[in-house]
Amino acid sequence: MVKQKLNATPSIRRLPSYLHIIREAQKTGDRFISGTVIAQELNLEPIQVRKDLAITGIVGKPKKGYPIGDLVLAIEHFLGWDLSRDAVLVGAGNLGSALIGHQEFKVHGLHVVAAFDTDSAKVGRVVHGVPILPIESISKELSKTKARSAILTVPSTYAQSVADAIIAAGITVIWNFTNVRLKVADGIIVQNEDLSSGYALLCVMAQNREKHAQGAATAI
Amino acid sequence: MVKQKLNATPSIRRLPSYLHIIREAQKTGDRFISGTVIAQELNLEPIQVRKDLAITGIVGKPKKGYPIGDLVLAIEHFLGWDLSRDAVLVGAGNLGSALIGHQEFKVHGLHVVAAFDTDSAKVGRVVHGVPILPIESISKELSKTKARSAILTVPSTYAQSVADAIIAAGITVIWNFTNVRLKVADGIIVQNEDLSSGYALLCVMAQNREKHAQGAATAI
Repeated sequence: MVKQKLNATPSIRRLPSYLHIIREAQKTGDRFISGTVIAQELNLEPIQVRKDLAITGIVGKPKKGYPIGDLVLAIEHFLGWDLSRDAVLVGAGNLGSALIGHQEFKVHGLHVVAAFDTDSAKVGRVVHGVPILPIESISKELSKTKARSAILTVPSTYAQSVADAIIAAGITVIWNFTNVRLKVADGIIVQNEDLSSGYALLCVMAQNREKHAQGAATAI
Repeated sequence: MVKQKLNATPSIRRLPSYLHIIREAQKTGDRFISGTVIAQELNLEPIQVRKDLAITGIVGKPKKGYPIGDLVLAIEHFLGWDLSRDAVLVGAGNLGSALIGHQEFKVHGLHVVAAFDTDSAKVGRVVHGVPILPIESISKELSKTKARSAILTVPSTYAQSVADAIIAAGITVIWNFTNVRLKVADGIIVQNEDLSSGYALLCVMAQNREKHAQGAATAI
């Protein structure tokens, strides 16, 4: 189960990039796109792109590639982005506000219905059309909506206690932007969004570049 | 080269989580940590953890595990987090401000020396101790610092033109938070931070959960 998850994770992570490229091609009026073209855009191996796209159930046509309309639908359906997902946001600071306003999520069906905060200075405000409500009201508010997903952008020190409270209020899916490994009951989904992961990749690539540059300089 | 990158990427992505857990264990006074303990915390296979840690060059001791002090140093050195990395931020909106204030990056050696924006209402302000300067001054400001890395958090429509301008000003490493695939010259490092990737994983996990829940309900 865990192994399965590990194998599929990088493929799922890449699907949004594919979707972005495919939609751009669609805008120019193309009806087919080849895995090779997608691979070139993203600096990947074509076999990797074909394997990744296979998880959505679509198969390309020899010499023509993938029918763009079907491919968009297949990826969106696989990701559940053809449906709307109502969510709440907890912790309406800078990061929370940025996520509420992130246009791309709206295209992917993410609909933030309410934001919650403990800060009385923030409560009552409206951020990108979303009202900021007191955290104590989350249970009452959830009963009014079908939102069972929460974006967690509180300070790390409050992450576990807030997670406990929102799960008690009915949240079953948490997109966790804190660096705390939340302890949750079985059946609660937590997706950790660790910005340090991307920073780690950046640093390794930058170091490799610097080493190569030094090597080149020495060679001269 | 691309293949190498693909293989190592998920391992590098996981290193910050390992570092976090190892540091927590260090705080409690532990001197050794086993790969199995790390694996349990992160719901991974122990063999995966050992393979990932091997890229930093460290080897565990049978029955004892990894010496924590050495392990922290090895991961930090591999990631270059034992050194300070000066960077600038371009686009001081909500996301940019959140990233400047992100405490964890500071622990990893990231030092944002200046932020740039086109908005005259923002220019002159100080965000989390970092001054917001006019984008036109980037070339002059870069000449005063050793920052050659930039965090790009501008609206997508400006991403390519701003990238061109900051590369011309001397930036060689870009952490790209826009959804634009930047066209850059060879030798320029771009790390795309695609928040939609994490959202894709969240959606797939949530859907699987919902299917299981339905299955269970049907079984009852």
